[in-house]
Amino acid sequence: MKKIVVIGGGSGTFVLLKGLKKYTTELTAICTMFDSGGSTGKLRDEFGYLPPGDIRRGILALAPESSETRILRELFNYRFTKGNGLTGHNFGNLLLTALKEITGDELASIEAASRLLHIKGRVLPVTLDHAQLCAELESGEIVYGETNIDIPQHDTTLRIKHVFLDHKTHALPDVLDAINEAEIIVIGPGDLFTSIIPNFLVEGMVKALQKSNAKKIYVCNIMTKNGETNNFQASDFLRTVETYIGSGILTHCIINTEQCSPELLQKYATENAKQVIVDSTILTRSDIHIITGNFLNEKDIARHESNKLAHTLIEL
Amino acid sequence: MKKIVVIGGGSGTFVLLKGLKKYTTELTAICTMFDSGGSTGKLRDEFGYLPPGDIRRGILALAPESSETRILRELFNYRFTKGNGLTGHNFGNLLLTALKEITGDELASIEAASRLLHIKGRVLPVTLDHAQLCAELESGEIVYGETNIDIPQHDTTLRIKHVFLDHKTHALPDVLDAINEAEIIVIGPGDLFTSIIPNFLVEGMVKALQKSNAKKIYVCNIMTKNGETNNFQASDFLRTVETYIGSGILTHCIINTEQCSPELLQKYATENAKQVIVDSTILTRSDIHIITGNFLNEKDIARHESNKLAHTLIEL
Repeated sequence: MKKIVVIGGGSGTFVLLKGLKKYTTELTAICTMFDSGGSTGKLRDEFGYLPPGDIRRGILALAPESSETRILRELFNYRFTKGNGLTGHNFGNLLLTALKEITGDELASIEAASRLLHIKGRVLPVTLDHAQLCAELESGEIVYGETNIDIPQHDTTLRIKHVFLDHKTHALPDVLDAINEAEIIVIGPGDLFTSIIPNFLVEGMVKALQKSNAKKIYVCNIMTKNGETNNFQASDFLRTVETYIGSGILTHCIINTEQCSPELLQKYATENAKQVIVDSTILTRSDIHIITGNFLNEKDIARHESNKLAHTLIEL
Repeated sequence: MKKIVVIGGGSGTFVLLKGLKKYTTELTAICTMFDSGGSTGKLRDEFGYLPPGDIRRGILALAPESSETRILRELFNYRFTKGNGLTGHNFGNLLLTALKEITGDELASIEAASRLLHIKGRVLPVTLDHAQLCAELESGEIVYGETNIDIPQHDTTLRIKHVFLDHKTHALPDVLDAINEAEIIVIGPGDLFTSIIPNFLVEGMVKALQKSNAKKIYVCNIMTKNGETNNFQASDFLRTVETYIGSGILTHCIINTEQCSPELLQKYATENAKQVIVDSTILTRSDIHIITGNFLNEKDIARHESNKLAHTLIEL
């Protein structure tokens, strides 16, 4: 069974995890811990813990879809819509927070929740250190906080020059071990500056990646994201990742080439997002295996088709 | 395996359930649903559901003490001490509330929580109808709401003349079936006017009890309670229960005769509570089996010794 590490966070990564869990139990999902908004941000502020949102979603993605875990999976995903102080809180986030209080330990709480949902692989926070994600725009303006980059308040015609953390953070030793032992390391898919790159801002991550003998695959996004990657073509995504992890590290890049429906594109247009153009710059790269194909799963949103993506990765 | 029904609510009943679960899996705990205070009361007000507190504690009491359920038991008992809007909320209550939202059904949510904690017996609310518990004092004053009787704001030298519900409620059919099939029905121990008697204010309960061929045992409290049973002797407890369920129904009454330590009595004195005096009126009753003995488990509070109490009940 292949040892796989997935580095990311956000919906795209969780779709991939759902596919990969069918092929291997030697699966480690590494999540960013810099979320600052919503239920997760509130808990971060009020309890002083790491934001549980991405950990929760990672555990949920790896949970077996058995009848035994059905009700816990539903609970893990449930969001209160009533109740003073409860409205907007995700039950799974509250569960992780209560577990942290009970166990007194961040990792123990994640392990306890993982056991409750009978997950086979592991979900690990990239770091236990606290920091805020910040972005410097090309105007020189600094945007503080993941949620302010994710849901942009700034002029979105301005490009992000670079992202950084406001405090020094160190990668969790278990994370570095998992990278060291991995045969396949998948980066993405996910929001480039808020879900993917933040992982590589954590001390030790880039070095571990560079030392690893694993195949290292970047899965390019299907859509651009307003305020983060407006007008990015596939080569821009890849180049940006390489800016942070170093060139010559990635061995493969997976790119969807199937066109989204006009209806869906119209819907995305209202959010100032477009389908990522697969440009010739990326297609002609000879130093990296470019894998193109139909990886699209179009429902009300554009997602990667989890089984096909997982199968392609396993077969590499 | 003997079919046992326990009617009550509150800490005393849960101590008994913990003991009984070792002897039988054919155990049904029937809880009052008129709690109006604390986390439970807030959820009742904000979600419009039945107050989950006693159901939660009943499930917890019946949960096997295995390592598999340890973390869920701890969660079920955990109370948030931080977080705007979360402070004071019990996690188990939130879980039952979320389950009610997910399943759309009060009983289904209780069953789901019971399955999560692998309990063998059943916990049932005496009714699904909403009502407030009210007490008329000997002065004629009416106290509204269970919590206002439980944590008295009124002049506690005034006796409770009677308690009643402000709305008509009907016993759950499953509750009536359980009573009908029971071989042993245990009433109490528990706060007389707020945990025990409210069960018999629900339409159908007294009739079911009267029709049943089971042995019917009242377990008398060890201590009096301020605002409810000040200066009550054992015969007062028994007589009050009989006032509500009818005379000639109970077959047995279990009474602790072991004296509490002076230190504990002093502690209780600060709460205006005393040890219940086992008076000659009750000891000379010939129409009912009076079982006396050392049933005391004295720690920081006076409780019934759960194993001995359970063993005595099973051996009847």
